Amino acid sequence: MTVPTIAVIGAGAWGTALACAQAQAGANVILWMRNPVPPDVRRLPRLPDVELPGNITVTGDLPTNADLTLIAVPLQTLRSVATRLSGTSPLVVCCKGVETGTGDLPLDILTEILPDRPRGVFSGPNFAIEVARGLPAAATIAAETLDAAQQYASLLSTPTLRLYASDDPLGVQIAGAAKNVIAIGAGIAIGAGLGENARAALITRAIVEIGRLSAAMGGRAATISGLSGLGDLILTCTGRGSRNYSLGLALGEGERLEDILSHRSTVAEGVATAPALLALARRYGVTMPIVETVTALLAGRFDPSTARNLLLDRPPATE
Amino acid sequence: MTVPTIAVIGAGAWGTALACAQAQAGANVILWMRNPVPPDVRRLPRLPDVELPGNITVTGDLPTNADLTLIAVPLQTLRSVATRLSGTSPLVVCCKGVETGTGDLPLDILTEILPDRPRGVFSGPNFAIEVARGLPAAATIAAETLDAAQQYASLLSTPTLRLYASDDPLGVQIAGAAKNVIAIGAGIAIGAGLGENARAALITRAIVEIGRLSAAMGGRAATISGLSGLGDLILTCTGRGSRNYSLGLALGEGERLEDILSHRSTVAEGVATAPALLALARRYGVTMPIVETVTALLAGRFDPSTARNLLLDRPPATE
Repeated sequence: MTVPTIAVIGAGAWGTALACAQAQAGANVILWMRNPVPPDVRRLPRLPDVELPGNITVTGDLPTNADLTLIAVPLQTLRSVATRLSGTSPLVVCCKGVETGTGDLPLDILTEILPDRPRGVFSGPNFAIEVARGLPAAATIAAETLDAAQQYASLLSTPTLRLYASDDPLGVQIAGAAKNVIAIGAGIAIGAGLGENARAALITRAIVEIGRLSAAMGGRAATISGLSGLGDLILTCTGRGSRNYSLGLALGEGERLEDILSHRSTVAEGVATAPALLALARRYGVTMPIVETVTALLAGRFDPSTARNLLLDRPPATE
Repeated sequence: MTVPTIAVIGAGAWGTALACAQAQAGANVILWMRNPVPPDVRRLPRLPDVELPGNITVTGDLPTNADLTLIAVPLQTLRSVATRLSGTSPLVVCCKGVETGTGDLPLDILTEILPDRPRGVFSGPNFAIEVARGLPAAATIAAETLDAAQQYASLLSTPTLRLYASDDPLGVQIAGAAKNVIAIGAGIAIGAGLGENARAALITRAIVEIGRLSAAMGGRAATISGLSGLGDLILTCTGRGSRNYSLGLALGEGERLEDILSHRSTVAEGVATAPALLALARRYGVTMPIVETVTALLAGRFDPSTARNLLLDRPPATE
């Protein structure tokens, strides 16, 4: 069996973790970094607790040869990075969100810029540090055909990373975009003192409204109950490890958005995604009360009584 | 509008909290307690942080007149309590599990013993203390007809407790029974150091296997993704506040089940439910790998490598 070569574009925490997981499983890994470190530096700034295995090459030159390329740059920079990619390997996107301005999902951007490259999307409940340490995890890999998804899943599966194939890349991308917005809402609920019951109910009802959007756009509602939706929501909405959740927490505790953002060097994708997602929901005629409330809160119309609306101020309903 | 009278059978934490929530919303509440406290005692042993509102009457006599009766005794004692109930009010069961020996769900027991009483089931992500304090929460009320469920929901809804009606009482009961078992599994995963990714994946995949059982028994799979399934799982699997989760945590850390149980005065329903649920799954020909693994661990076949099986040692799959 030949050793596969996996390219990873982006050396943030998630790109670094994916590189480590693939290298630990035996692949040759080329990790592209915007500002590359010298070869003898084996710890990267975004994941300093993990030493890079020897079979990871860190480079500032975008790799052109690989069996598969994982793209792990922030969604809002995906377009500019994609225009610089060359080669023929399948591209698997590992970032989440809706592009500001265009409303595009990650694969929309790749389809536009690199229409000839096979492509897929990787999404699941994966804190980077745990994946880098080889703790067990699972995720979904979706592509237009189940065959392609299974091929990517088979190439990327490791003894500790279990990958489920799906042919609903649209649903997976919607789930990934929405979860950062819902995580902010969950943080607000906890920060504002509404309690864990409220948070659990909010996550559950969020699955319903995201499922509606997925179905309206041509994806499946059931995908939202899978690893890339529900799984990722559970993880993101229950740990301070998530940037979006902790941003919501601070908002719920009464901090101003500008003040929170000014203290941070990392990106909370949900802030940019919330209005873009809401625009998408309106375009498809879908009601998303939780996303709507979070967007309003982010726009500065926050007060504690509004936070209650996240959950309670709606007419009686069936489940 | 007349003030409704709500009877609550059982003054554990959950019964006491339900009584408080209904009383705060203005109902007359009769709270039955096996060993009743004197009328001047306004804090009960299982929920000592909350003072009972004045419109709760604590009694050792089983109430016969009420507009609705909530039953919040432990599932394994439901049969013996039910045989002592009289009156005509609708009965809404608030306990969860599968009866040891018979494999009966809560409504099976009521149907057998009190076939003429209208009945429903109440289940959702509800830590008792938060409900008693009037923090926002949501839950599902299910009955054989949506009309009946909506009638119970309307009677029991309060400004902070949002109730969704459902006509799938079977799915709701299966969700409620399974969640205590899965919570033990989630605790084991965290206790054994498998990490939060593993827990989120375990919860997500649990929804799939519980959905299979629900569908096989004549309920709906989708109910399991609702408040009584997913919602309750999120809550129970992410907080030490849950007895089942904390039992799993101790098991995962290497404590012996006998030692854990000997320190506890409260019931971890999942211990009795796990083998009963597995028997149910086998009777209906449904594969439930997570429930199976938890049952094996509880039966004393635990070691850390087995805990990994909870998630990873299964063939490739699609989602």
